[in-house]
Amino acid sequence: MRDVVEIGKGKSARRGFELSEVSLVPSRRTRDVDDVSTAWQLDAYQFGIPCVAHPSDATMSPESAIELSRQGGLGVLNAEGLWCRYEDPTPVLAELAGLSDDAATARLQEVYAEPIKPSLITERVKQMRDAGATVSVRVSPQHTIALSPVVLDAGVDVLVIQGTLVSAEHVSTGDEPLNLKEFIADLDLPVVVGGCTNYTTALHLMRTGAAGVIVGVGADLWSTTGDVLGISVPMASAIADAAAARRDYLDETGGRYVHLIADGDIESSGDIAKAVACGADAVMLGGVLAEAAEAPAGGAWWHSAASHPKLPRGMYRPAEEDRDAVSMETLLHGPSHEPYGNHNLFGGLRRSMAKCGYSNLKEFQKVELTVS
Amino acid sequence: MRDVVEIGKGKSARRGFELSEVSLVPSRRTRDVDDVSTAWQLDAYQFGIPCVAHPSDATMSPESAIELSRQGGLGVLNAEGLWCRYEDPTPVLAELAGLSDDAATARLQEVYAEPIKPSLITERVKQMRDAGATVSVRVSPQHTIALSPVVLDAGVDVLVIQGTLVSAEHVSTGDEPLNLKEFIADLDLPVVVGGCTNYTTALHLMRTGAAGVIVGVGADLWSTTGDVLGISVPMASAIADAAAARRDYLDETGGRYVHLIADGDIESSGDIAKAVACGADAVMLGGVLAEAAEAPAGGAWWHSAASHPKLPRGMYRPAEEDRDAVSMETLLHGPSHEPYGNHNLFGGLRRSMAKCGYSNLKEFQKVELTVS
Amino acid sequence: MRDVVEIGKGKSARRGFELSEVSLVPSRRTRDVDDVSTAWQLDAYQFGIPCVAHPSDATMSPESAIELSRQGGLGVLNAEGLWCRYEDPTPVLAELAGLSDDAATARLQEVYAEPIKPSLITERVKQMRDAGATVSVRVSPQHTIALSPVVLDAGVDVLVIQGTLVSAEHVSTGDEPLNLKEFIADLDLPVVVGGCTNYTTALHLMRTGAAGVIVGVGADLWSTTGDVLGISVPMASAIADAAAARRDYLDETGGRYVHLIADGDIESSGDIAKAVACGADAVMLGGVLAEAAEAPAGGAWWHSAASHPKLPRGMYRPAEEDRDAVSMETLLHGPSHEPYGNHNLFGGLRRSMAKCGYSNLKEFQKVELTVS
Amino acid sequence: MRDVVEIGKGKSARRGFELSEVSLVPSRRTRDVDDVSTAWQLDAYQFGIPCVAHPSDATMSPESAIELSRQGGLGVLNAEGLWCRYEDPTPVLAELAGLSDDAATARLQEVYAEPIKPSLITERVKQMRDAGATVSVRVSPQHTIALSPVVLDAGVDVLVIQGTLVSAEHVSTGDEPLNLKEFIADLDLPVVVGGCTNYTTALHLMRTGAAGVIVGVGADLWSTTGDVLGISVPMASAIADAAAARRDYLDETGGRYVHLIADGDIESSGDIAKAVACGADAVMLGGVLAEAAEAPAGGAWWHSAASHPKLPRGMYRPAEEDRDAVSMETLLHGPSHEPYGNHNLFGGLRRSMAKCGYSNLKEFQKVELTVS
Repeated sequence: MRDVVEIGKGKSARRGFELSEVSLVPSRRTRDVDDVSTAWQLDAYQFGIPCVAHPSDATMSPESAIELSRQGGLGVLNAEGLWCRYEDPTPVLAELAGLSDDAATARLQEVYAEPIKPSLITERVKQMRDAGATVSVRVSPQHTIALSPVVLDAGVDVLVIQGTLVSAEHVSTGDEPLNLKEFIADLDLPVVVGGCTNYTTALHLMRTGAAGVIVGVGADLWSTTGDVLGISVPMASAIADAAAARRDYLDETGGRYVHLIADGDIESSGDIAKAVACGADAVMLGGVLAEAAEAPAGGAWWHSAASHPKLPRGMYRPAEEDRDAVSMETLLHGPSHEPYGNHNLFGGLRRSMAKCGYSNLKEFQKVELTVS
Repeated sequence: MRDVVEIGKGKSARRGFELSEVSLVPSRRTRDVDDVSTAWQLDAYQFGIPCVAHPSDATMSPESAIELSRQGGLGVLNAEGLWCRYEDPTPVLAELAGLSDDAATARLQEVYAEPIKPSLITERVKQMRDAGATVSVRVSPQHTIALSPVVLDAGVDVLVIQGTLVSAEHVSTGDEPLNLKEFIADLDLPVVVGGCTNYTTALHLMRTGAAGVIVGVGADLWSTTGDVLGISVPMASAIADAAAARRDYLDETGGRYVHLIADGDIESSGDIAKAVACGADAVMLGGVLAEAAEAPAGGAWWHSAASHPKLPRGMYRPAEEDRDAVSMETLLHGPSHEPYGNHNLFGGLRRSMAKCGYSNLKEFQKVELTVS
Repeated sequence: MRDVVEIGKGKSARRGFELSEVSLVPSRRTRDVDDVSTAWQLDAYQFGIPCVAHPSDATMSPESAIELSRQGGLGVLNAEGLWCRYEDPTPVLAELAGLSDDAATARLQEVYAEPIKPSLITERVKQMRDAGATVSVRVSPQHTIALSPVVLDAGVDVLVIQGTLVSAEHVSTGDEPLNLKEFIADLDLPVVVGGCTNYTTALHLMRTGAAGVIVGVGADLWSTTGDVLGISVPMASAIADAAAARRDYLDETGGRYVHLIADGDIESSGDIAKAVACGADAVMLGGVLAEAAEAPAGGAWWHSAASHPKLPRGMYRPAEEDRDAVSMETLLHGPSHEPYGNHNLFGGLRRSMAKCGYSNLKEFQKVELTVS
Repeated sequence: MRDVVEIGKGKSARRGFELSEVSLVPSRRTRDVDDVSTAWQLDAYQFGIPCVAHPSDATMSPESAIELSRQGGLGVLNAEGLWCRYEDPTPVLAELAGLSDDAATARLQEVYAEPIKPSLITERVKQMRDAGATVSVRVSPQHTIALSPVVLDAGVDVLVIQGTLVSAEHVSTGDEPLNLKEFIADLDLPVVVGGCTNYTTALHLMRTGAAGVIVGVGADLWSTTGDVLGISVPMASAIADAAAARRDYLDETGGRYVHLIADGDIESSGDIAKAVACGADAVMLGGVLAEAAEAPAGGAWWHSAASHPKLPRGMYRPAEEDRDAVSMETLLHGPSHEPYGNHNLFGGLRRSMAKCGYSNLKEFQKVELTVS
């Protein structure tokens, strides 16, 4: 039953499936939409919807993170983003909102050359705390040791350590690398780490003590990780494999449940439903969330990796012309006046669960799939 | 032989096939076209062609339902459509015939906000009865309890209970849900129910006592059910699975034959032939029938779900510009002056059966298939 | 190893492969191009290239059939085409050469409504005989009984009985159908029959005593047989299956070799090589041959079925604008100044054989394949 | 596990995979980019990057070969190209840089009709030697006997014998064919031969004593070998099969390691990573290298086979309009200001290795793959 194919004599590969290749198969029951719950809980924090923001400057400002918190999701501010590099990043964001495709990469590289200012991290966190939001900040593995004291002192609720690919075992002949397990053991707040792409890495990340593991590299239509690194993640398979690691880790620890947050190829309510069906506990929204009226870059979208100084790995997506952006509330909870599944994202998830006959997210992970 | 693939460790999926992926394999015989019959019978009602209208305002008015009956098929008027919401829906339909893509969804939502008028249902049914048509009306599962007394009193021949997805076991903590089995047992007319997408749901729907089960969710190029709900139905597999349920139910009841009506991805005579080859007894025609000269919306097409007030799930297809629409007779029986298989739909089916060597629909369900 | 998939419970289908899905795998040898032979022999007739014309008015006039014979192939005039309906078809062909897409189908239907004139068949055959060509004429199975006396009296060398799909067992409740086996037994010239699409039909056609069997329905990009009838032929599989029938028939008759002529999806020298690799002895060229300077319709192309009076099954392909047509000689033997494999068709075949290490067609049928 | 499918009864084919179908799966480790080595060694020659130039006039002049050597790769000048046909090919190259698509093939055929001048080979080699480059020259198998004395006398370091498809066993009834094994045995410099497409041919080429074997036929988007010859090479499978031949030859010789150079479908750093992952020791760069500022044809690109006098097998790619070409250094080593993986090619490889957790090329050949 395992789909392993021979590429050539002695070289095999596992067949991987994209979310776009799978489809839900309704059970023999249906349910009322109003009987369905999309609630999610990470450590002590409760959320009405299983929605985490991809920590990008195109999705998250302190204000939009606060608004996402109000709408039931988890906002994540990038501690290495523009809000923590510039005292007032709004002129920069205004410029980035209107770049032309040609010049975009070079300009992103320049803008992100500005150094990170720890004091700004403190300030941004305070703003979010004061507004009553569940506060989450992202740092990269490379900068975790340097930035985490500032971040933790500022008082975050959830720490996100995220790079394109993070392993529990970083090998370096130079500086002492971050030991995730020791680092997390010393903290008393929940940590989310990732991304990762397979069973083994997911399991090892779970063993670091993380409360959540990010599955996927955040790839979407504008990502070029596949072209640049040869690494494309078939998300349906990656999520399902990580879910198996979650089960095995649950067994080996006698009951520690690590949450999986799917990050990649999620553009519609149907994609959210499929990600949960494959085993995700929550989803990370990037480009689709960048289209909210509250998003800081006016509808434009780029990956963090798109600004890498030597090896950029993402395209700049300009905002739609003459766009009539909907509020984050409409984007997440509707009503929608578009038939494409990009508005009323969690109303769509709820209806999908109802039509398939499931009443909560954990049950919905058992829905059957078909591939085509 | 069963095509089950592993999405990830511990999560499998069945391979599903679209009608577009299968093709008929002629047998070693050929037949004269004139020796082939496309006759179909549902309960006491006989039809020259296995054609049921998708109950949409873009296909069915009382007049077009009457004409379809004359041409040998079964027209189905939507009791929750515009003809039962507006005394004179023709100005509304004239407007809907010419919407621009951008504004279409919002306008559909507005137009369908008008309440249903039970008296209009009675009036429309009377008009169809008086014309001598086999009268069929569609209600949604949600409104079946409320509307069916009116519908039945008005005197329909075949009742169609249709939603995107209907199960025999709707769970609700609020109102007492429709118990299909009890409801149907109390009636003395044939009931068609659906859609459904798999063996189990089809079997359970058969056990409600339905005379016919609709397979599929009516999806076509303009449907966005996949994007919004994550549910895409591979029609060839869905039909074949439901046909297996039909066989098993035939055995368990010692001879009760439930008819399968395929609803989705049927745009050409070749698609009709393939649907029958997979096991369908009849097909539901939506967008292709909306192009007939008699169709009420001037060639425009939209799904019922496209007007959902909060979560629309279908695109509006405008009519072709400068269209030179053919009559329903030509559409169904030819002659065709187009090579695309969209006119002379049942002449095409007949010729396909002849070339493959089969003389009636039931035999034709045995034709071999190839996939590519 | 057999690729049978389950479409749904109890309904299976065989996986079929297109020529475009297969590719040749060179052997460990290479050869000089000059050492390679593309010679082919059907009954007593020898040909320098395994090339048969698709008997269409867009490819074959008496003159172009004569030219094809000169170039080493077999021209086949359609006894039911325009040359046998009109005393002088050149004005009609000139008009057909310049149709617009919209009006094309209706105009083809009108033009082919003109009755067939037996005396013209006699005249056209005489013209080809007098020029020293190997003379071949095509009749449809429906008209074989009526037309064959005229055709045979006129003195053809090879009779081609061709319909979209021909079986050895045509069932009719009306007229006495053509009994191919008895018909062929009474003749003393080689007969080619087809098309067919699978092992069983091919084997039964071989048992009629045919010298050659046509595999495929002549489908190409302009064919709509799949849309209209639901029948699409995966040519690589169809040819390979018919080749198996050829082997089995060879065994059952103790040595009667029936030639397979592949008709469908052959647009380039690479396609010719692949058809032979799958087991074809020769190929039928349609649309690609219609582009020769000598072709009667100025580069336009249509299938016979495109003019069906009630159910047309093919699109009209207009000639390329400002075309600079090459001669049939260049088309078949080069030199080519285009890199697309559509000129120097049999020079391309020869080079393919040389690069793969084979010296004649029969050996080349053994070349290995890969699918992608 | 072997993916063999039945095309038709009695005719099977192996499933082949393209580089675009595979993706790398990171291991559970990550590494610092600075700890990763991309060093490669062929015989006594050491290279910083596993990069060999496709010996085309669009990539290699003596100057650009020298520059590639400086940048750590191996330049290969075509002894049968324009630099060895024209005393001063720069006006010809300037013209070729600006051809229009229509006229390109015919003009290439004319330009390459100019005879090869052995004295120019000597001159070009001297120029490269004098500049201190590792000197490599390509001859075709057909001209190896005639040209190799000149080439060897001129003093090359690495001889490349390359044709579209080269076998160790060329059969000819005319001239005595090149016996590669004897020819190589008489030389005391490393020889690279190819291309080849499968295990058997690769193994036989290894047995000729070659230091390196080229896998693939150099096909890319502009190649038409598939259309003309029916031969398309699924590169991932071809490389993996040749790697198996390398292992088997290593065993049969008790330790002779033959290097595999992948030639085809390599357009980005991700493709390079995948080629190594499948088993390549180095890659041949064609069209992507032709875009360097130093490339002789101003960014235009064509295959050698595109100029074949009778059967051209490649399209001419014009240079991008208004191009702002980057230097070969930037192309190979960055920094890149494009997100597409076409600049900083070997920086991308290095980062891919680091993210996947490998520190040198030989280890990286073991990285896991997924197919989609």
